Amino acid sequence: MGAPKPISNLARLRRLVEESDFDAVIAVSPESVPYTAGVFIWTQRTIRERLAIVVWPKKGEPTFIVCTIEEAEARERSWIEDTRTYVEFKTSPIEALIEVLEEKGLVEGTLGIEKSYLSTAYHDELRERVPRARLEACEDLFYKARMVKTPDEIKLMTRAARATEKALLSTFATIQPGDTEKSMALRLSMAMLQCGGDRIKFLYINAGPNSGYPHRQPGDYQAQPGDIIRTDCGAYFNGYISDIGRTAVVGSPSGEQRSIYRRLIEIHHETIQVARPGKRACDLFETARQGYAKRHVPFPLPHCGHSLGLDGHEQPILNAFDTTELEPNMLFAIETRVRWPGEQGYHIEDLVQVTEGAPRVLSDFFATDDLFVI
Amino acid sequence: MGAPKPISNLARLRRLVEESDFDAVIAVSPESVPYTAGVFIWTQRTIRERLAIVVWPKKGEPTFIVCTIEEAEARERSWIEDTRTYVEFKTSPIEALIEVLEEKGLVEGTLGIEKSYLSTAYHDELRERVPRARLEACEDLFYKARMVKTPDEIKLMTRAARATEKALLSTFATIQPGDTEKSMALRLSMAMLQCGGDRIKFLYINAGPNSGYPHRQPGDYQAQPGDIIRTDCGAYFNGYISDIGRTAVVGSPSGEQRSIYRRLIEIHHETIQVARPGKRACDLFETARQGYAKRHVPFPLPHCGHSLGLDGHEQPILNAFDTTELEPNMLFAIETRVRWPGEQGYHIEDLVQVTEGAPRVLSDFFATDDLFVI
Repeated sequence: MGAPKPISNLARLRRLVEESDFDAVIAVSPESVPYTAGVFIWTQRTIRERLAIVVWPKKGEPTFIVCTIEEAEARERSWIEDTRTYVEFKTSPIEALIEVLEEKGLVEGTLGIEKSYLSTAYHDELRERVPRARLEACEDLFYKARMVKTPDEIKLMTRAARATEKALLSTFATIQPGDTEKSMALRLSMAMLQCGGDRIKFLYINAGPNSGYPHRQPGDYQAQPGDIIRTDCGAYFNGYISDIGRTAVVGSPSGEQRSIYRRLIEIHHETIQVARPGKRACDLFETARQGYAKRHVPFPLPHCGHSLGLDGHEQPILNAFDTTELEPNMLFAIETRVRWPGEQGYHIEDLVQVTEGAPRVLSDFFATDDLFVI
Repeated sequence: MGAPKPISNLARLRRLVEESDFDAVIAVSPESVPYTAGVFIWTQRTIRERLAIVVWPKKGEPTFIVCTIEEAEARERSWIEDTRTYVEFKTSPIEALIEVLEEKGLVEGTLGIEKSYLSTAYHDELRERVPRARLEACEDLFYKARMVKTPDEIKLMTRAARATEKALLSTFATIQPGDTEKSMALRLSMAMLQCGGDRIKFLYINAGPNSGYPHRQPGDYQAQPGDIIRTDCGAYFNGYISDIGRTAVVGSPSGEQRSIYRRLIEIHHETIQVARPGKRACDLFETARQGYAKRHVPFPLPHCGHSLGLDGHEQPILNAFDTTELEPNMLFAIETRVRWPGEQGYHIEDLVQVTEGAPRVLSDFFATDDLFVI
């Protein structure tokens, strides 16, 4: 049985490595390892010390290093043929890495490492053992590879976005006054799994005054008529992450609620429309900023969205400082929201594909132009 | 409304800091921050760059640093009164940390940092900005504080363990030949949430040949009569993690299956019995190793269990090298298992409390002495 083909763009990654100054790049993050190896070592996300590593040299084939516990999975599921192992606690993963570097003649080379992920402790260990190597941050290279999606990635992430929307719609359909946030969260979680999610990544569903907090654990508060129900949630689908936000109101919205939502949805559409090739990430932020200002909605937020894929927040980030130019087949979670802690909060978040022409909203399972009435 | 009291042992932490050589310790991990601040900043676990930080000086009161997005949550839910914020992307969290260090006269002090969590990139930034400070690893201090649980922590983790067992039992009760692993995983996930889990931490339920892999994503394989069903799963309960493993068989077990399970359960009981004050973590590993050898069960495993709490694997780890002496009110996930990839695998994992006398199995909702027959 052959290993499944990765859906990531390894040709793009290979080209970036070849064009770089690195003699090798070393993937250690729970995003770059599955991107390169084409296999998910789930414990990467739950047991930080248990590193999985891909050494990707400028010339030659990559090597995959995993703890013996994960060996069978790695050998059977990854396309990488050269797999090495280390015994946890007995041998450090860095020791196993050094052995590969020595064998490949890289110990005096320029090595790209993911400095924004690798812990200081592991870095110190590596630094000490290969004193003549130049250890340089290479996360930008991985970000650059990952930020343009393949057709298979787009297909998967579209399915994930729509499944998450379906879960939201089915949850909204069952909410009644008196329901606790916790019971709504349970129903939403179950719906996300029933709609195909492998596991929940994050899930916020808050009502009334709690809707004013971005990441409050759903609790015992009971939804009342007139309450805003604010959601923001995502799940893993074959390792890729969905991220969708929808807002509803219990019973008839007040004039103020209707007005706030109407203004937000206008800002949302305006921002999405800027997601075209040649525009920069910060241009979307600036459009959003102006849209909020023009409509007198507070905007103390550091970003109005982000790319996503194997990680929940990926580069480019739609903030004031990210000047990355957009390209076709980048995907963005564009999020338009406003919050007054202890009072109310609104959140609209969609998955948008940059195309050669107009941006395409992939999360189009149910319309958001009007506040959803429960 | 006053902030809820943390259930962690802050007096113990305070004493450890006072007895240490650190002028301050700096918590940054998703475990040590809630342990010290008494509040869960959930995005710590999902957005790595968005640090939350607690500066805990040897003398004086701690300071809590969060991104503005999390400000309201931190101010309302933490007992720490001094809260500072930074605007994501605009100001680095390290910049905010340095401001606090300057104000407290700590920039030339000995600072404890969690080097096994803090990324190399953030560490480099800190290093450069406080060149006269001694930055030393302090994770051992946090491990030491966290490894002895308070009565409230034990109560919560007992509830979590038993809820996870209940979810397993209710799932086992519904399995029929022909069920896919994916459908079993969905039912188990839902049951864990219905039994009170806030979100799933990890979840493996595999059948037949797939039961031989420790962390295979449940897929399309359909359980057959005679298949082993191996599980290993945990969820968050108020931020604390459960970790339970149970094994079942579809229909009547074969003589070989019965024999393997019988030997494992004997090893399991023998290992648990060593969990007493004065014994070392490695003594449990050695007991397990000998138990496997005596009963001719392969044991290529690097550990036979671990402590747990706010993290899934916490110190002490029950491996060959950890010489930590056990103390009353340490909790351990003791796991006894064997796997043949592509053939079959068994997993028994229980939550055990070290007491003054005999160890207490807290996950005692359903008996594991015999292989569970579906």
